[in-house]
Amino acid sequence: MGKYRFEEEEHELFRKSLRKFLEKEAVPQYEKWEEDRIIPKSFWKRLGDMGFLCPQVEEEYGGLGADFRYAVIIGEEMERVGASLTGVGLHNDITVPYIEAYGSEEQKQRWLPGCVAGDHITAIAMTEPGAGSDLANLSTTAVRQGDNYIVNGQKTFITNGINSTLILVAVKTDPKADPKHKGISLLLVEEGTPGFTKGRKLNKVGLHAQDTSELYFEDCVVPAANLIGAENKGFTYLMEKLQQERLVVAIAAQTASEDMLEMTLDYVKSRKAFGKPISSFQNTQFKLVEMATEVEIGHSFLESLIEDHMAGKDIVSKVSMAKYWLTDTAKKISGECMQLHGGYGYMEEYKIARRFRDIPVAAIYAGSNEIMKTIVAKRMGL
Amino acid sequence: MGKYRFEEEEHELFRKSLRKFLEKEAVPQYEKWEEDRIIPKSFWKRLGDMGFLCPQVEEEYGGLGADFRYAVIIGEEMERVGASLTGVGLHNDITVPYIEAYGSEEQKQRWLPGCVAGDHITAIAMTEPGAGSDLANLSTTAVRQGDNYIVNGQKTFITNGINSTLILVAVKTDPKADPKHKGISLLLVEEGTPGFTKGRKLNKVGLHAQDTSELYFEDCVVPAANLIGAENKGFTYLMEKLQQERLVVAIAAQTASEDMLEMTLDYVKSRKAFGKPISSFQNTQFKLVEMATEVEIGHSFLESLIEDHMAGKDIVSKVSMAKYWLTDTAKKISGECMQLHGGYGYMEEYKIARRFRDIPVAAIYAGSNEIMKTIVAKRMGL
Amino acid sequence: MGKYRFEEEEHELFRKSLRKFLEKEAVPQYEKWEEDRIIPKSFWKRLGDMGFLCPQVEEEYGGLGADFRYAVIIGEEMERVGASLTGVGLHNDITVPYIEAYGSEEQKQRWLPGCVAGDHITAIAMTEPGAGSDLANLSTTAVRQGDNYIVNGQKTFITNGINSTLILVAVKTDPKADPKHKGISLLLVEEGTPGFTKGRKLNKVGLHAQDTSELYFEDCVVPAANLIGAENKGFTYLMEKLQQERLVVAIAAQTASEDMLEMTLDYVKSRKAFGKPISSFQNTQFKLVEMATEVEIGHSFLESLIEDHMAGKDIVSKVSMAKYWLTDTAKKISGECMQLHGGYGYMEEYKIARRFRDIPVAAIYAGSNEIMKTIVAKRMGL
Amino acid sequence: MGKYRFEEEEHELFRKSLRKFLEKEAVPQYEKWEEDRIIPKSFWKRLGDMGFLCPQVEEEYGGLGADFRYAVIIGEEMERVGASLTGVGLHNDITVPYIEAYGSEEQKQRWLPGCVAGDHITAIAMTEPGAGSDLANLSTTAVRQGDNYIVNGQKTFITNGINSTLILVAVKTDPKADPKHKGISLLLVEEGTPGFTKGRKLNKVGLHAQDTSELYFEDCVVPAANLIGAENKGFTYLMEKLQQERLVVAIAAQTASEDMLEMTLDYVKSRKAFGKPISSFQNTQFKLVEMATEVEIGHSFLESLIEDHMAGKDIVSKVSMAKYWLTDTAKKISGECMQLHGGYGYMEEYKIARRFRDIPVAAIYAGSNEIMKTIVAKRMGL
Ligand SMILES: Cc1cc2nc3c(=O)[nH]c(=O)nc-3n(C[C@H](O)[C@H](O)[C@H](O)COP(=O)(O)OP(=O)(O)OC[C@H]3O[C@@H](n4cnc5c(N)ncnc54)[C@H](O)[C@@H]3O)c2cc1C
Ligand SMILES: Cc1cc2nc3c(=O)[nH]c(=O)nc-3n(C[C@H](O)[C@H](O)[C@H](O)COP(=O)(O)OP(=O)(O)OC[C@H]3O[C@@H](n4cnc5c(N)ncnc54)[C@H](O)[C@@H]3O)c2cc1C
Ligand SMILES: Cc1cc2nc3c(=O)[nH]c(=O)nc-3n(C[C@H](O)[C@H](O)[C@H](O)COP(=O)(O)OP(=O)(O)OC[C@H]3O[C@@H](n4cnc5c(N)ncnc54)[C@H](O)[C@@H]3O)c2cc1C
Ligand SMILES: Cc1cc2nc3c(=O)[nH]c(=O)nc-3n(C[C@H](O)[C@H](O)[C@H](O)COP(=O)(O)OP(=O)(O)OC[C@H]3O[C@@H](n4cnc5c(N)ncnc54)[C@H](O)[C@@H]3O)c2cc1C
Repeated sequence: MGKYRFEEEEHELFRKSLRKFLEKEAVPQYEKWEEDRIIPKSFWKRLGDMGFLCPQVEEEYGGLGADFRYAVIIGEEMERVGASLTGVGLHNDITVPYIEAYGSEEQKQRWLPGCVAGDHITAIAMTEPGAGSDLANLSTTAVRQGDNYIVNGQKTFITNGINSTLILVAVKTDPKADPKHKGISLLLVEEGTPGFTKGRKLNKVGLHAQDTSELYFEDCVVPAANLIGAENKGFTYLMEKLQQERLVVAIAAQTASEDMLEMTLDYVKSRKAFGKPISSFQNTQFKLVEMATEVEIGHSFLESLIEDHMAGKDIVSKVSMAKYWLTDTAKKISGECMQLHGGYGYMEEYKIARRFRDIPVAAIYAGSNEIMKTIVAKRMGL
Repeated sequence: MGKYRFEEEEHELFRKSLRKFLEKEAVPQYEKWEEDRIIPKSFWKRLGDMGFLCPQVEEEYGGLGADFRYAVIIGEEMERVGASLTGVGLHNDITVPYIEAYGSEEQKQRWLPGCVAGDHITAIAMTEPGAGSDLANLSTTAVRQGDNYIVNGQKTFITNGINSTLILVAVKTDPKADPKHKGISLLLVEEGTPGFTKGRKLNKVGLHAQDTSELYFEDCVVPAANLIGAENKGFTYLMEKLQQERLVVAIAAQTASEDMLEMTLDYVKSRKAFGKPISSFQNTQFKLVEMATEVEIGHSFLESLIEDHMAGKDIVSKVSMAKYWLTDTAKKISGECMQLHGGYGYMEEYKIARRFRDIPVAAIYAGSNEIMKTIVAKRMGL
Repeated sequence: MGKYRFEEEEHELFRKSLRKFLEKEAVPQYEKWEEDRIIPKSFWKRLGDMGFLCPQVEEEYGGLGADFRYAVIIGEEMERVGASLTGVGLHNDITVPYIEAYGSEEQKQRWLPGCVAGDHITAIAMTEPGAGSDLANLSTTAVRQGDNYIVNGQKTFITNGINSTLILVAVKTDPKADPKHKGISLLLVEEGTPGFTKGRKLNKVGLHAQDTSELYFEDCVVPAANLIGAENKGFTYLMEKLQQERLVVAIAAQTASEDMLEMTLDYVKSRKAFGKPISSFQNTQFKLVEMATEVEIGHSFLESLIEDHMAGKDIVSKVSMAKYWLTDTAKKISGECMQLHGGYGYMEEYKIARRFRDIPVAAIYAGSNEIMKTIVAKRMGL
Repeated sequence: MGKYRFEEEEHELFRKSLRKFLEKEAVPQYEKWEEDRIIPKSFWKRLGDMGFLCPQVEEEYGGLGADFRYAVIIGEEMERVGASLTGVGLHNDITVPYIEAYGSEEQKQRWLPGCVAGDHITAIAMTEPGAGSDLANLSTTAVRQGDNYIVNGQKTFITNGINSTLILVAVKTDPKADPKHKGISLLLVEEGTPGFTKGRKLNKVGLHAQDTSELYFEDCVVPAANLIGAENKGFTYLMEKLQQERLVVAIAAQTASEDMLEMTLDYVKSRKAFGKPISSFQNTQFKLVEMATEVEIGHSFLESLIEDHMAGKDIVSKVSMAKYWLTDTAKKISGECMQLHGGYGYMEEYKIARRFRDIPVAAIYAGSNEIMKTIVAKRMGL
């Protein structure tokens, strides 16, 4: 794909330097990280040193005050290396923004500089074994006791779970609230807090270097000073910030599609069968044209959506559409591109193999694609 | 859909006045025209009077020198009334531009004012019974004899065939040319030319008010002065102008999709079954959300494509993608929207019924969707 | 397709004689019938004379006591001529079986011989403007008055509506029944009954020779002797007999698919573009192979379903699956085969054109495909 | 699914005993085998002891002379445990049959008993780094030298590669043959043959316990007595035996689909969101009904295909259709079932996760699905 309409020279320079950095410090290590099932903290630190963590944070807290176009570029370039780097976008564009938007001055000063520097790695813990799509139904409780909250419960599927030092946890502070979602708050739990333990690193189909894990809270004592925003307002905050989360997932999916298309184009042009490149078979051609078309279309749509987001428009419907359509499309493309690679497509050493097993989760997390459709339906008056 | 990014106030005003005109002079007659299997010439004349024919033509030839945005609006508003009005776009944006681009000064003066006024209705005759996709293979011949060409052959599937007074005919002037496409020229044949007769009005699945027909040339004597551009350059001209033809078809398909979505949304909200609106069934909701998403995505893509076209960029790949994807999408949407209408969807008095039988031809004409894919494939180096 | 496993020599002979008959008496007239928007009663009479109406009826009422295999053959051969002959299957396999199964001895003697002979043409009127899928909600009432029922209400979309002389009407005899479906009965209304009038012949997208119409009942006096089966048992009867109705629709859809595949294979082998048959393009080949596969698979499935039906097994789930899948598949195939015909596919004189506009209704009537899915879902415990 | 029409009591008993065996000896070990990336030879030996290896082999060579129905049952039950057991079917139904069909009496006596007993594990090595679909183009050579063939070349993607003790290798014995496929022969290479080494065990997206690997031949000296059948007849043998290979893959795919459907039905009925089981959402219901329908249809088709195969009919077209359609369907179902599992579907401890990453290879091996389509196309005269 060409660059976005909204990219200017400074963005291009930024992209170049980031890409160069990643080619040197991420690409060669990526396979090892996948085997290790985790990305080393040292890499996070390097990212921080280079200014690639949370560049949007205001300068007074150590950031660059960069606009969302930089986030787009970081999201794309990380994804281009491999989907397991998804935790960086989560940190930059999903978790930290809660602190920026709803944190008190004191909280910002306490945490943001570390987030920018790579000393803090963040996670957001909403999902529980019994509550995923139906977030309002979560059962982790936080009971106020003096200056603390006593937290009890379990979270699961938490991205950056093992590496994280700061975890934004959605808890129930008013179990009797009706409707339920009015009793939810957000607590920032720090690593090492008594009663908080990290559980298993989960064994997933893909995203192998992503340290997704379970988290346990047993009479965990969290200072009330760690409450983000107002009590019982958590759900509202989540609904607001989930829009950018979905946008970030949509951008990654689009990048994955572009990447798969590109590598498959290369492959079919060089691979031969029956005395000619497999790119010469009309089926190969039509499949690739169809994918290229969807990639091109997706690009236009995303471009317009990012612009709307930067302009502060209400993007709820559009981002829900983008999240489901772009992830479903990427999922479909992964199957077709693997197929065009023949047997090699099934071998882990080929990047298409990794893409295939990494992508399907994008249709599940950040709000499942079915949930996206229910959101749009409601907004269409259905 | 909202309006396009590039629409300005003057365009909105133009759209409003056109829509008002059509609601008065086209909508109420449309069903009768469908039964009559033709649109009366008087309607064309009214269009001309109002300035809705070829507004792009320069003022010296009677036009308004309007930019392509006006063409977009006319295309959309005609399609909104019904697909049988497709012949207007063909006249405005497909045929007449050949005269504008390749006609001599004399030719422009002779014909353009009539085209703008609605005194002339144009058609373009490329397809023959034995040559459609494979245009270079056409067999209608034009042999130079003194100041005339003697034309022999048959054309078929010609839009505006019956109403047309000026027909741009692709003929073979050099049957020995190798490659074949280098022997093709464009002749403007006027109604009444000896040896030229209009054949059957074809009986089609849809587009009932469109007067698609066969054309016959038997020793038809066409003045050499009616040659458009240079001899044997016809194929080059066609390849150049076909891009806008495909864009026009893509715009109509997008409009049809938007229209079908809108009418189906209305329908499912008011129709009840099992004690509730059928819009309350999740299947109805998801289907409509999926369609709305494709419509929204298509809109973004088309918007960006129209901008590229207006900026004079090479749009060959992108317009070929748009032509196939938007028409295929519209075809799919027509089937799903008909289904959501239940039995009523199959009744001609419901607009969705007409849409269903009108739309599939869009995947065939202006270059079949398969041909679009071969074009893109070639450009992708496949 | 080859013949079914269960076809024996006698069935083959029957098929041959029927096909010969239709080639002589239906095929040449079909286009005219389509223009006339009706099949003449004389053709029905000829069918009766030849033993092609209701052969399953027991010999004592004039039938042949033939098994369901004959019905399959009649259904297929009628559909092969054209979908507008669908009314014959409705008469044979859908309406008349109600009389056979639930009619009294007296009723059977009164009506069955005429149904077999072609003197009676039957229809079944369930659907109303406000109640289609949700049959239990119908509002046509029948109030007992002495030896009669006084019927008031309106029916719509009734196949054979104009030609029919005997109409099986679903009426509400107990408007207070709870659940609603327990208040429904079936009345056989004879043509000419006072207060019964036939409404408009509906203008449909396809099935042009099928005389689908509205029916009106205004204080219509129907003898109580015309009640079929027990009062308020109508819904149970319908649920039982709808299974064979759906099977008949599934068989027709499969036949349509086979027919479209065959004609398209012929077409692509003979049509040329770019110097070779269009069957030589890999896209054409793969599309046709995919369709042939679905046709082959559909055939196996239907074969096994028909066997289950003849063996008296519970086919509710399986026939609902078949009805939706085979009609959806036929709908999809119609679009793809039309496309492979290029411009000719859109011309009414090509059979594929007619197939395209005839088939979509099969996904709507006899219980919409969505209703089929809800039935299967319930049976799967969902 | 119910049992096949052709299963008799003895087959049911066999299935029961096999299933019981597997539940005890395979299911509890399966996860460990997946981690180990191989199935231990001891398990093969146990299979042999129990009579589950090559039961079709004639009694004089140690087998049971069992018919193909037993193969169907073994294939299904292995697949039900997990796709990594695919190597058993390869041994039983793909490789060993070459020895049975084309081996000399001496060869049969030498090898068959060991194959039945589990002392020999077989593999078939056709594919090379540069020749997969285009088998005739293979470049591993075998040059006759006295009583031996000197084999040079490399094979890749070989199922059972590491465990195998007998490898049927496709070699080029006549490099000048024209057409190329007339120069191919089959040699049975024994483990330990000088010059033969096993290469890397390949790292695959799925089938983790399957020991797929590379094989190297460097001046490998294979006794001419190990030639299977006649020299230069190898391609003919392959084309004949590949039909059963494809059938075996089709059976496994159908089993996988049935298994996924079943586990997903269970899951959605027990998993709750928004206060009700997710099986209560209409989208869940419709998706599952659609899958159940395809599973049911696939079952009928496969049943009829297996019958044709057992009856010795030409199944080339039908098995090619089945191979592509059933594997593509299983691939699609895997994505949808994973999605319905939400986040859990992406966790390796859920069987659906394994199914998702195991299934796509079925669309690639045993002749890619594209190759299947070219075969059917040719047979349809396209
Ligand atoms: C790798 C990975 C990383 C993750 N990272 C995080 C993280 O960092 N933080 C965090 O909080 N969570 C995280 N998640 C959790 C993720 O957001 C949830 O898995 C997701 O929201 C779905 O919830 P669930 O798994 O409980 O599925 P369920 O809610 O149980 O849904 C099961 C199925 O039912 C469907 N469904 C649910 N409701 C409806 C409805 N109304 N209509 C139709 N269908 C419906 C769903 O779409 C889905 O297909 C992660 C998950 C994974 C797999
Ligand atoms: C209503 C209507 C209006 C029309 N108006 C006009 C008009 O005004 N002027 C005019 O000149 N023409 C007009 N046409 C003709 C139209 O442009 C042609 O029908 C179209 O270009 C296809 O040509 P064909 O019908 O000869 O199909 P063919 O060229 O015979 O194609 C048959 C099928 O083969 C496919 N095919 C062809 N080549 C390839 C390939 N290389 N690879 C894969 N598939 C291939 C096609 O896509 C198609 O599916 C009109 C047609 C219709 C139906
Ligand atoms: C040509 C033709 C011939 C016919 N012949 C006859 C005849 O001879 N006799 C007769 O009685 N009727 C006949 N019908 C009527 C036919 O059976 C109905 O049209 C059909 O049952 C659908 O009912 P409806 O049109 O009222 O649609 P509606 O019930 O209004 O349905 C509208 C849409 O909502 C969907 N929907 C409804 N309920 C649900 C749900 N619970 N979940 C999800 N989606 C749902 C439907 O599937 C459909 O897509 C005929 C119809 C046609 C078009
Ligand atoms: C896990 C695994 C196990 C295997 N086990 C064995 C084994 O035991 N023994 C063995 O010999 N092999 C085995 N194979 C190899 C397998 O059979 C081949 O991978 C397969 O035949 C495809 O060959 P290829 O990988 O060379 O793909 P290619 O032939 O390079 O094909 C690449 C792509 O081009 C497409 N293509 C090729 N020709 C055409 C055409 N004419 N028209 C359109 N498209 C075309 C293909 O469909 C594919 O999508 C195995 C493979 C895997 C992955």
